[in-house]
Amino acid sequence: MGQSWKQFVAAKLVTRDAMIQKHSRNKSVECSHITALDNITELTQQLRSGHISAQDVVRAYISQACAAQQQTNCLTELCFDDALTQAKRLDDYLKDHGELFGPLHGVPVSLKDQFNVKGLDSTLGYVGRAGKPASSNALIVDVLQDLGAIVLTKTNLPQSILWCETENPLWGLTTHPMNPDFTPGGSSGGEAALLALHGSLLGWGTDIGGSIRIPSHMNGLWGLKPSSGRMSYQGVEVSLEGQQHVPSAVGPMTRSLSSLVLVTKLVIEAEPWLSDSQLPPMPWKNDVFGRFSSKPLVIGIVPDDGVVKVHPPIARVFRETVTKLQGAGHEIVEWDTSLHRACIDIMDEYYSADGGEDVRSAVTEGGEPFVPHVQAFVDRGPPISVYRYWQLNKRKVAAQQAYHDQWNSTRSASGRPVDVLLIPTMPHTAVAHRCCRWVGYTKVFNFLDYTALSFPAGKVDKGIDIAQDESYVPRNDLDAWNQKQYDLESMHGHHISLQLVGRKFEEEKVLGAAQQVEQLLRERVEDNQKHNEAYTRLR
Amino acid sequence: MGQSWKQFVAAKLVTRDAMIQKHSRNKSVECSHITALDNITELTQQLRSGHISAQDVVRAYISQACAAQQQTNCLTELCFDDALTQAKRLDDYLKDHGELFGPLHGVPVSLKDQFNVKGLDSTLGYVGRAGKPASSNALIVDVLQDLGAIVLTKTNLPQSILWCETENPLWGLTTHPMNPDFTPGGSSGGEAALLALHGSLLGWGTDIGGSIRIPSHMNGLWGLKPSSGRMSYQGVEVSLEGQQHVPSAVGPMTRSLSSLVLVTKLVIEAEPWLSDSQLPPMPWKNDVFGRFSSKPLVIGIVPDDGVVKVHPPIARVFRETVTKLQGAGHEIVEWDTSLHRACIDIMDEYYSADGGEDVRSAVTEGGEPFVPHVQAFVDRGPPISVYRYWQLNKRKVAAQQAYHDQWNSTRSASGRPVDVLLIPTMPHTAVAHRCCRWVGYTKVFNFLDYTALSFPAGKVDKGIDIAQDESYVPRNDLDAWNQKQYDLESMHGHHISLQLVGRKFEEEKVLGAAQQVEQLLRERVEDNQKHNEAYTRLR
Repeated sequence: MGQSWKQFVAAKLVTRDAMIQKHSRNKSVECSHITALDNITELTQQLRSGHISAQDVVRAYISQACAAQQQTNCLTELCFDDALTQAKRLDDYLKDHGELFGPLHGVPVSLKDQFNVKGLDSTLGYVGRAGKPASSNALIVDVLQDLGAIVLTKTNLPQSILWCETENPLWGLTTHPMNPDFTPGGSSGGEAALLALHGSLLGWGTDIGGSIRIPSHMNGLWGLKPSSGRMSYQGVEVSLEGQQHVPSAVGPMTRSLSSLVLVTKLVIEAEPWLSDSQLPPMPWKNDVFGRFSSKPLVIGIVPDDGVVKVHPPIARVFRETVTKLQGAGHEIVEWDTSLHRACIDIMDEYYSADGGEDVRSAVTEGGEPFVPHVQAFVDRGPPISVYRYWQLNKRKVAAQQAYHDQWNSTRSASGRPVDVLLIPTMPHTAVAHRCCRWVGYTKVFNFLDYTALSFPAGKVDKGIDIAQDESYVPRNDLDAWNQKQYDLESMHGHHISLQLVGRKFEEEKVLGAAQQVEQLLRERVEDNQKHNEAYTRLR
Repeated sequence: MGQSWKQFVAAKLVTRDAMIQKHSRNKSVECSHITALDNITELTQQLRSGHISAQDVVRAYISQACAAQQQTNCLTELCFDDALTQAKRLDDYLKDHGELFGPLHGVPVSLKDQFNVKGLDSTLGYVGRAGKPASSNALIVDVLQDLGAIVLTKTNLPQSILWCETENPLWGLTTHPMNPDFTPGGSSGGEAALLALHGSLLGWGTDIGGSIRIPSHMNGLWGLKPSSGRMSYQGVEVSLEGQQHVPSAVGPMTRSLSSLVLVTKLVIEAEPWLSDSQLPPMPWKNDVFGRFSSKPLVIGIVPDDGVVKVHPPIARVFRETVTKLQGAGHEIVEWDTSLHRACIDIMDEYYSADGGEDVRSAVTEGGEPFVPHVQAFVDRGPPISVYRYWQLNKRKVAAQQAYHDQWNSTRSASGRPVDVLLIPTMPHTAVAHRCCRWVGYTKVFNFLDYTALSFPAGKVDKGIDIAQDESYVPRNDLDAWNQKQYDLESMHGHHISLQLVGRKFEEEKVLGAAQQVEQLLRERVEDNQKHNEAYTRLR
């Protein structure tokens, strides 16, 4: 291919950047009151009342998305013109009918590059897939549009997708909104950067090892990885397609829990199993959601996964959250993580079971170079046989069952079973590019196909957080690497998230429990504000 | 291994046959009124009222099971002594508490050899697995025992399991209750022979290509193959374990629909997903069952799968059933089977994806010879790569989706969607040993993981059925083979079953629809009886 892949990339970027240029010029000055909203329902209320139009919303968000792109290089394929056309249609609908088109009327949506949108490429960051537009929408795109949502843009992801940062030779490197030297995480990193910069109100990612939760963590977002059969993957392109044993899951990313709950409920209530042959019929259980929104919980806590110790600010936020939960009457159980490492070892054998052939052939098709970690991935070793693959499946089922049995047999001090787990999303905050290594805090729940929500629980604060304990002896190379990344100065102000985890198909339970956690965190913020105000008055 | 496998087999059979001898001597003369009952509820009512005891029931059934064994060689591992002990315990419970232990109190159960029962081998018909007793029960065995059921025995299956007849070098050949030269079908053939001879009241099989439905068809039984995630496979041993892409399913076999409905409901209401990590939480939907038990149905009919034409008696019974359904106000739609062949072709690639290694190594371990069809299976070709296996998964998902789309887009003349399909279970009745070839009528629904029920719809009747049309030109070798098997004389009186098929996790719908079909069939039998009586009077 010689240099031709570079020419191909250049042409692709020219098209994108011209669209950015065109729409950046349309910048409306008075849009911050629209993009400042994090709650979908608040936006649709303003639309219903006529205070703003869908076209106002789309223009405001396009403007912010262009700014986000210029700051972080988070976008891939754009459909701003279509979005404006659709907004006009919604405004007309509201005028004609006196009511919203649907519960997501006028809500701007962004999608990780994998989601097919008719007429746009789903490149997955591979040059060889560019210039091959999708002939139809992913099912979830149709569902969202039927609810009134407006797709604005698709967003960047890493080469091979299977990575927790966001870089590929086609679309380039996506950077963190707070620091260009830092990664926004990945693989749904473009999505997270865009949402954090208010360039979209509702994002969609995919997660096979933490790809929704990790960038949500690094950018202060709410991100849900449902069990894989809960939301439709139909029309969502993916690496290692056909590898169904560690399933990737589609899920939403938002700036507020209320938005996350709303869209999760709506896309499940759309009954996607009627269209998608791969989904079990699993209606939204509002009673479960309601119950876990109010009842005293039993929470299994994992302050440390036993492999890589979290940085001090994460340990602090975790501790504070646990204290708050206990104070509110929830019961805490220390959760045994001794099965995690075995789960992760089995899982890693799946990713490379084909000897890297899938990713290698996708990259080779376009002729672009391998990003270093992808090179390492495809060089990991020869493929295994189908017979050995089946033995791997047996080990997987046994390990999943062992974890399930552990959950069933664990009881709190008062004798109650565990409702959800609380565990950090990562052992560190956002870090410098190409410095992420350990995703064991998230990926174990992909292996188990559990429901996992990442939620913003605090921030690094150099005024209160402590330095690394220099006497700490790392447990292993990964742990040593992680300890080396800790830098209180550059991490100051960065987001810290924790995960709430339920078992398979327990989305309602996890989101219900999250309502209670969010309430407590809000009270804490308000307490801090009061404390600060009091302190200011005292001075 | 030389001759040693034969010595091993001889020792195993001596143990079994000694147990048969011991319990055959206990034959109670007055047991036919107990084993004549086909309806579980009628039996438990008699137990509750004290007319009979659980020990009476077990003794009666053991006696019948011994007779069935002597006639058809249908049994493998026995637990008659334990069954009698358990029956005594249930009798004591009833005496002490004045109520039944559970809704299956005293119900004799038989299990295909695959189901683990503590202390018994799960040989799968492999010599190499003999003498290795299970250390715990399969989950479903625990569930049944918790409901009060009593396990009597395990039953025979074919070498490799993956076959529609019942023969292996360890336990030998199982024959048809009506004709020793005929196969009872398979792979749950021992189960079917035993149930047909009233040697058990409730049987459990597994089905990855028709293995519950085919022997049910050949023996006049009701057999349900649920979707694979509906009932627990935990503790059920299987060939090609770890091959999860064409999933085998566990399901019940009975002599009556009422028994089948009852046990299906009970084992689902036991919430097996709480124990088994592989099952989605999917409660029994009584409203769906009730609705489809009474509403006018839209039935997609498949009189012929387009590959192998059914024998004339099967065509007649199918026609009669359709006429009856139409007469009762149900709407009929011709169902397009053009996707079936592609589904089956993909499916066949899975079975042999390991190049036969799983089955070959299991047989080699014991040293016994391959049964001819198993030899052909393991010689089918080299294994495929994991990468190609993943591509196969992609083709599978696409084919499943195409079938799902077809179902969604099909409408009846009145514009309604299809509720269930009606399709023969096999193109022939029971036939001579080693003469089965085509299981395309059943296996396509394993590929789709749909719910499929096989129900007895009639019998061959040489007084009304026609000979083969000699001018018929076979479509292919399989079709030619099948036409050659047709022999009205030897098939006279043999059972003919049809399938009712619903989509994934539609057990309630299929069983509800079956209630209506059964009612119609019963009326037909009553009509025939009246007709015959009138005829007799006239003569």
